[in-house]
Amino acid sequence: MAYDLWYWPTIPGRGEFVRLALEAAGIDYRDRAREEGAAALVADLEERTARAPFAPPYLALEGLVIAQVANILMFLGERHGLGPSSMADRLWLNEVQLTISDLVAEVHNVHHPVGVGAYYDEQKPEAARAAAPFREERLPKFLHWFEKAVTCHPGDWLIDGRWTYGDTSLFQLVEGLRYMFPKRMATLEPDYPGVIRVHDMVAGLPGVRAYRNSDRAIPFNEDGIFRHYPELDAA
Amino acid sequence: MAYDLWYWPTIPGRGEFVRLALEAAGIDYRDRAREEGAAALVADLEERTARAPFAPPYLALEGLVIAQVANILMFLGERHGLGPSSMADRLWLNEVQLTISDLVAEVHNVHHPVGVGAYYDEQKPEAARAAAPFREERLPKFLHWFEKAVTCHPGDWLIDGRWTYGDTSLFQLVEGLRYMFPKRMATLEPDYPGVIRVHDMVAGLPGVRAYRNSDRAIPFNEDGIFRHYPELDAA
Repeated sequence: MAYDLWYWPTIPGRGEFVRLALEAAGIDYRDRAREEGAAALVADLEERTARAPFAPPYLALEGLVIAQVANILMFLGERHGLGPSSMADRLWLNEVQLTISDLVAEVHNVHHPVGVGAYYDEQKPEAARAAAPFREERLPKFLHWFEKAVTCHPGDWLIDGRWTYGDTSLFQLVEGLRYMFPKRMATLEPDYPGVIRVHDMVAGLPGVRAYRNSDRAIPFNEDGIFRHYPELDAA
Repeated sequence: MAYDLWYWPTIPGRGEFVRLALEAAGIDYRDRAREEGAAALVADLEERTARAPFAPPYLALEGLVIAQVANILMFLGERHGLGPSSMADRLWLNEVQLTISDLVAEVHNVHHPVGVGAYYDEQKPEAARAAAPFREERLPKFLHWFEKAVTCHPGDWLIDGRWTYGDTSLFQLVEGLRYMFPKRMATLEPDYPGVIRVHDMVAGLPGVRAYRNSDRAIPFNEDGIFRHYPELDAA
């Protein structure tokens, strides 16, 4: 039986971390709001009573509803073997995913520093101020940590000798950062060859390749998490 | 054998969510940086190679190092019975904890909207701008969701008929919000009786009572996550 994935239908956003893991693993799912529109997502969220998610993305199957990206991925990891089996490894993978979530939240804060519900145009000077320390301090700090995470084990993947949901998430992180900060990433990338290697290997997974060549994949745009505002980028 | 907890020794901060669960359950731990100082924490973090945490808090025991608050709590929950046993309930509890983490990140962003590494004094106008929609829109939205989370099951606690780490975390959330936004919380609290009930029941747990009466508990202050800047509060 196919999962129902509910997420905003016009952006990659946080939902893309879930879509990528599902697509890479060939797990059957329906991207409900892409079929039925954003209004159907809002209606579904409002109709849910017990354990309704705070926000999309969420995954539903047979009465079980799971929200929060790291939580969804941990579930998929355990149920479909997209994660390691030992407790120590599962905790570590969750830790990496949660650190990716932290970076994603900081990325969103760069273009929305003083008002989550307001437009970027209403906070451009503040966004410019927030972008500078993000590019210069936070981004290298995070990338340095992900590089250490990737290279502290033998093998090419993040963990184990095979891909896990942590690898597909690192792929999406690099994709998003390249879209949002092309100049800065061009400067930084040579310092993080392990992260880029994982990115490239994920791009070569048959399920990911097929997905990215399909019309299911939504290009980055200026309504999502990773937005390209040239004035926020610099080498 | 006692856990080593590593966190900044002068603030409750994110570490407090871990300290509270440990104290409520009577689990033996050493708050290492409180014994040895912040320099010892920095040194410990630098000495770690494989799987070094991105940031404190982290918990160490016999070679296992676990970081990220929700990850630490999930581990403690499973190992010490501070969480439910069914998979659906464990995922739900993790989802609640991750939503608490999201709110904590937004709270920090209120007083540091344009520079995580800069001082509050360097971003006061931006903080004032960020505080208004946080108080008026985001805070009630989160509290409304936590109220639904608490009241969608029978029983007084968040889940099951006994406390879990989700309850101690909700307690700390209410404590922090009351410290940071006393006027706003006085206005909002009557709408969220279930959340306040959980807070009060956690305050009455013997382990929590003993901890809060001890010199181990660190008062909120303006170096932590929850900071009382009167200019950011309003009814």
